[in-house]
Amino acid sequence: MNRSYMKAALQEAVKAFATGDVPVGAVVVKDGKIIGTGFNKREACQDPTAHAEMLAIREAAESLGSWRLTGASLYVTLEPCPMCAGAIINARIQKLVFGAYDPKAGAVVSLMGLLYDERFNHAVEVYDGICHDQCSGLLRRFFQGLRCDDADNSER
Amino acid sequence: MNRSYMKAALQEAVKAFATGDVPVGAVVVKDGKIIGTGFNKREACQDPTAHAEMLAIREAAESLGSWRLTGASLYVTLEPCPMCAGAIINARIQKLVFGAYDPKAGAVVSLMGLLYDERFNHAVEVYDGICHDQCSGLLRRFFQGLRCDDADNSER
Repeated sequence: MNRSYMKAALQEAVKAFATGDVPVGAVVVKDGKIIGTGFNKREACQDPTAHAEMLAIREAAESLGSWRLTGASLYVTLEPCPMCAGAIINARIQKLVFGAYDPKAGAVVSLMGLLYDERFNHAVEVYDGICHDQCSGLLRRFFQGLRCDDADNSER
Repeated sequence: MNRSYMKAALQEAVKAFATGDVPVGAVVVKDGKIIGTGFNKREACQDPTAHAEMLAIREAAESLGSWRLTGASLYVTLEPCPMCAGAIINARIQKLVFGAYDPKAGAVVSLMGLLYDERFNHAVEVYDGICHDQCSGLLRRFFQGLRCDDADNSER
């Protein structure tokens, strides 16, 4: 686990502000190299699947020319939702590092523990709450700017 | 619930054979019209997120110009995995109709009941086992052809 990759994920998250998207960013790392990056583009692309993690995973698979991201780590500023946690399993990602917790939709520790379900026959190492204050601070500033707490304004 | 849309999903599933992908197909329907189609392209595109449901949902969102697929139904030949069940929630899909059950990765009734979790604040009507024999028969013929029961040859 290397905090500098979380800084890179935070830089991605900042890009989402420009499009009015909830600021969540992600990077996929393998062998010490970033092979995929992504930031939330749900609003920008009007695509319900365009979460930061999904875009980073897809770019990483394209980089490797393989859907199997064995040995790769995903760094993301917010706890993954069920869709993204499922994609982490499907992509055979080895390690997940996330920053802020998501009490509304987090599927790793907050609402459920999808990555700890042994029936999926794929184990993921999880490091949670890494750079938590920076990750959650960015989200808080975004929602303060909106002056709105409508549930549909979460990334999920 | 209209079985003719499951037939359309089955036609999509058949297309996956040609690329060596597990034959799963999906369509998204709104106001009596198919607005998104997809078939499993994990192997063809080497994309771990390219499940039939994801591609159909993305196409439907593009058709509508909105990530909110409110009032839409998703028909898919195989029970959704956690990623796809999560995408159904994220896209605010109203109704899910699926054919075959997936005892290895099904996140709707087989391994868990993601769509019945009231904490997500979005209810999805579920119709399961529709055209079950045709959907599961297609999968069985595919795996018999492979003569292989390796878990990694499932769509998931």
